[in-house]
Amino acid sequence: MNIAEYMQTLGKQAREASRQLAQAATEVKNAALLATAEELDKQREELLAANNEDMKAGATRQLDAALLDRLELNHERIDAMIEGLRQVASLPDPVGEITEMSYRPSGIQVGKMRVPLGVVGIIYESRPNVTVEAASLCLKAGNAAVLRGGSEAISSNKAIAQCLMQGLKAAGLPETSVQVVETIDREAVAQMITLSEYIDVLVPRGGKGLIERITADAKIPVIKHLDGVCHVYIDSYADREKALNIAINAKTHRYGTCNTMETLLIHESQAASLLPALTEAYEAKGVELRGCVRSRLVAPSMLAAIDSDWTAEYLAPILAVKLVDCLDEAMTHINTYGSHHTDAIITENYTRARRFMAVVDSSSVMVNASTRFADGFEYGLGAEVGISTDKIHARGPVGLNGLTSQKYLVLGDGQIRG
Amino acid sequence: MNIAEYMQTLGKQAREASRQLAQAATEVKNAALLATAEELDKQREELLAANNEDMKAGATRQLDAALLDRLELNHERIDAMIEGLRQVASLPDPVGEITEMSYRPSGIQVGKMRVPLGVVGIIYESRPNVTVEAASLCLKAGNAAVLRGGSEAISSNKAIAQCLMQGLKAAGLPETSVQVVETIDREAVAQMITLSEYIDVLVPRGGKGLIERITADAKIPVIKHLDGVCHVYIDSYADREKALNIAINAKTHRYGTCNTMETLLIHESQAASLLPALTEAYEAKGVELRGCVRSRLVAPSMLAAIDSDWTAEYLAPILAVKLVDCLDEAMTHINTYGSHHTDAIITENYTRARRFMAVVDSSSVMVNASTRFADGFEYGLGAEVGISTDKIHARGPVGLNGLTSQKYLVLGDGQIRG
Repeated sequence: MNIAEYMQTLGKQAREASRQLAQAATEVKNAALLATAEELDKQREELLAANNEDMKAGATRQLDAALLDRLELNHERIDAMIEGLRQVASLPDPVGEITEMSYRPSGIQVGKMRVPLGVVGIIYESRPNVTVEAASLCLKAGNAAVLRGGSEAISSNKAIAQCLMQGLKAAGLPETSVQVVETIDREAVAQMITLSEYIDVLVPRGGKGLIERITADAKIPVIKHLDGVCHVYIDSYADREKALNIAINAKTHRYGTCNTMETLLIHESQAASLLPALTEAYEAKGVELRGCVRSRLVAPSMLAAIDSDWTAEYLAPILAVKLVDCLDEAMTHINTYGSHHTDAIITENYTRARRFMAVVDSSSVMVNASTRFADGFEYGLGAEVGISTDKIHARGPVGLNGLTSQKYLVLGDGQIRG
Repeated sequence: MNIAEYMQTLGKQAREASRQLAQAATEVKNAALLATAEELDKQREELLAANNEDMKAGATRQLDAALLDRLELNHERIDAMIEGLRQVASLPDPVGEITEMSYRPSGIQVGKMRVPLGVVGIIYESRPNVTVEAASLCLKAGNAAVLRGGSEAISSNKAIAQCLMQGLKAAGLPETSVQVVETIDREAVAQMITLSEYIDVLVPRGGKGLIERITADAKIPVIKHLDGVCHVYIDSYADREKALNIAINAKTHRYGTCNTMETLLIHESQAASLLPALTEAYEAKGVELRGCVRSRLVAPSMLAAIDSDWTAEYLAPILAVKLVDCLDEAMTHINTYGSHHTDAIITENYTRARRFMAVVDSSSVMVNASTRFADGFEYGLGAEVGISTDKIHARGPVGLNGLTSQKYLVLGDGQIRG
């Protein structure tokens, strides 16, 4: 197969499909989502068989246990995909929303209409459910999608693609509205990220290395999700109970997620009161603590943190701990060493909360809430294709609106410029 | 001078300044704008002398008359710059605007806060007033700016930079908030567009060639303004007077602007009634008409259009004319040959207007109004750094909001995820 030609063909077909999709009625898009859900239900055996091929190949290639776990499909996970499709079908359609219409002195009326982006390219790893999630969000937002999953999930993804095509067909939409790249050749990604004529935006989902490589070489705008080095700052005015609950939840609710706290900052006035209780709680859960020099004077059981701990995204039961002298030191630390993902302050002080919200330069800034809430579902977006750490276009959890654009509408009665 | 080091230094300084600017109060930013206006007024002689150097050098280099005209400063143009600064000072500050706050089932309150992008890099040609316009919009939106003007305007731009620095200083803001690149070495642009660590977004303003080169090589997101191949479609249900007025205004109000109509589409049922009046009006203004075969049967005085006319941005008194059989043909023509900039339908038919608005994929879609209205000032944005033909981030005229981003705010009372 000539990979360049193959990707060009996928791109062209996606562009053509996108023109039809952009005009598709909400009920037609929802019908395709629900029909796909039905197909997944009907084709459980085929899906599990295809997934089994991937799992066997993965075992032969000696993929690690965590990766094999993410790769695996079972009835529960198929149920979750079906439920996800139904949820996306139940979300309001963002396309066509008209906002901000107002009259100008010339007599024209100016506002904005929300429209699809066109074609979205998604590049992701291992978890086959991403194929359904990403496809369903793109489709609901009126976009065609080109999906490039990991080579380890190729059989599963092809089987899911069959269900999507059936679903699209049943609703009378082009089967090329969602296309799965059916080659594991890496050249396909290299080609895909240069198809600026056919793909409007790329959403890479995966490790930081993958995303950096794609961003460096892409000729298409990229909605990036780099690392999540999230902080909780316990202020001198923090409520003790809220501080303990949130600091423990933000670290230990899940270790491997991007919105997990990686560094805990504590105002020095709170250290003696809170650190012993916190270290006890963390150690009971097996969290390794790495503290700054001053914090270790209060809690000597902690290991000594080194410079690289302040920028580390552990994704593991490890936490860096630092005492700070004031709010400003905390905010400077967050803006300097953090990844601009999600950061929280625990305080009862109105002015400090207000300053933290204004100064901290992160995609989500929180007051008295766990960083773990930074997620499309918790924010009411329904679902997300990722969490953007960019400032351009979409920032934070990217849901349906992040997959759209707004054009200007101008309504007149024959106005001309004088 | 080592250009790479020089640009790195500018970048670093901009990044540092941006941190302070992001927190600057509205009144401080406005004070800087007004103080700069005063400086421009005080330093008129210096500005005119510096500009005179550029004009002399331009004459020696035999720059063409149009370019020299754009380059020239005089008292009127300095007045306009001063007035522009005052207008930007009078605009509402976009930074800190909080919207869409709502409660979620978990009890957290989620919404968005508008924040500066950080550092904006602007690359432009000839007109020195862009230095003031771009700097003032970036500053008002809380961004630091790195400005790279054309080599032909280097002395004028340096003189304007002096006024900006004085204005910033008077308001107590870092003088590095706005930096003009003070070398004409082209390597400076090559370096600038790779400074992803220090510059958050690039806004190139100039010819299509410049913008395409920058987009191809940039390692930073680009807000692009490519060409404006704008259409007016006169529908079968058009009001005769509105159609004539708008078709003439959209072409002849100004020939060199990006929102000027370049192709006129006419429903075949209107041709016999409108084309003779239109050709007469255009020819009276010296507009060269290039018609399709069928339109020339009605108006034989038109030249014959060739394929390249349908994609041409003439920026000149030339107009392509085409008859179409139906609304769909018109919309397909616009989406295929246009540049997704600004396109208008003239119709009294509700359903057709509604379809045109939904289907035409342009940054501005108009009904019964002249394409010439596509401009930041006419849209109420106050001013613009450009008109984006992109779909990512900002689309259409880019004003203060286009130079900002939105972060999520989450307010809680100690909520944790269960």
